[in-house]
Amino acid sequence: MKKSFGAKTLIFPTPVWCVGSYDNRGRPNVMTIAWGGVCCSSPPCVTISLRKATYTYGNIMEKMAYTVSVPSEKYTKEADYFGMATGRKEDKFERTGLTAVGSDLVDAPYVAEFPMILECRVIHHYEIGLHTHFVGEILDVKVDASVLGDNGKPDIQKVRPIIFANEVRRYHGVGQLLGKAFDMGKELM
Amino acid sequence: MKKSFGAKTLIFPTPVWCVGSYDNRGRPNVMTIAWGGVCCSSPPCVTISLRKATYTYGNIMEKMAYTVSVPSEKYTKEADYFGMATGRKEDKFERTGLTAVGSDLVDAPYVAEFPMILECRVIHHYEIGLHTHFVGEILDVKVDASVLGDNGKPDIQKVRPIIFANEVRRYHGVGQLLGKAFDMGKELM
Repeated sequence: MKKSFGAKTLIFPTPVWCVGSYDNRGRPNVMTIAWGGVCCSSPPCVTISLRKATYTYGNIMEKMAYTVSVPSEKYTKEADYFGMATGRKEDKFERTGLTAVGSDLVDAPYVAEFPMILECRVIHHYEIGLHTHFVGEILDVKVDASVLGDNGKPDIQKVRPIIFANEVRRYHGVGQLLGKAFDMGKELM
Repeated sequence: MKKSFGAKTLIFPTPVWCVGSYDNRGRPNVMTIAWGGVCCSSPPCVTISLRKATYTYGNIMEKMAYTVSVPSEKYTKEADYFGMATGRKEDKFERTGLTAVGSDLVDAPYVAEFPMILECRVIHHYEIGLHTHFVGEILDVKVDASVLGDNGKPDIQKVRPIIFANEVRRYHGVGQLLGKAFDMGKELM
């Protein structure tokens, strides 16, 4: 028996990603978003959606660049703060004690303490309604050596990204391994 | 110390969502995607990205409609299969024993057994590269009564959506509660 909730953005899971940008005086800013996702494999691209009212919106429209820093769950409080405060009024890096590092590839800063970083240049943007949608081409992904597995690839249980449950406004960690992709389903083929 | 992985779609977390569509003979199909995300709150919209080679791509271009069915972790095997098989050659509903139900709102079917369903009409699409990006306006969200919490809202630990770790190709469940959003960060403000 299914209950109808109407027209709303109610879907699980959504990510917790921190978007880095510079303002027109070169000051680093970072804001947290849950409205985003990968949108193309080649060129590799990741989308983010922002309200025009955000400071980050203006920054990205000017620089046509952003980073995505993926926080570990130990930084949940900081990530939550990044989503509530505005860079118009406060220096979020200073307040949290986290470190802004400028990308060598795009005109945007990232959060040094976060384990996974994407550096993106905007290749497309358009207004949907309340949010403007940005498509960023991923120029590089940088990952802390400490969160790599034995195979040299990032281990999600070491990165420990945060899951956002919208509507109920809860953050969760990543849980147990369920199985291998492109493998488990073979027995049905 | 960060290691550079180059230009690739390496980011955590990404979702596991099953996209329902009808072909031009009215046969239901479903495929699993990880390239998608919410992109606007008003109108509420969710994106999916598809390769042109997929059967679903042709279906959606014709019907301008799709559903997103969120599988619970107990259907990980079926979700993996939906991402490997093609509706051109097999009836994926018949093979898995899962039930296609036609939406009343859009010309697309959803997976009855999955706990969370979104019914979407395409309002925008464009080609990025390998993938075409679809923006779907969410007309309704339907959720199983059995996965609602005491507050009447969907409980992510009952829905039990699947997290995809790309590059390492692993599925994970949702883990422990980390805290309340728009709340934990207040102590930094």
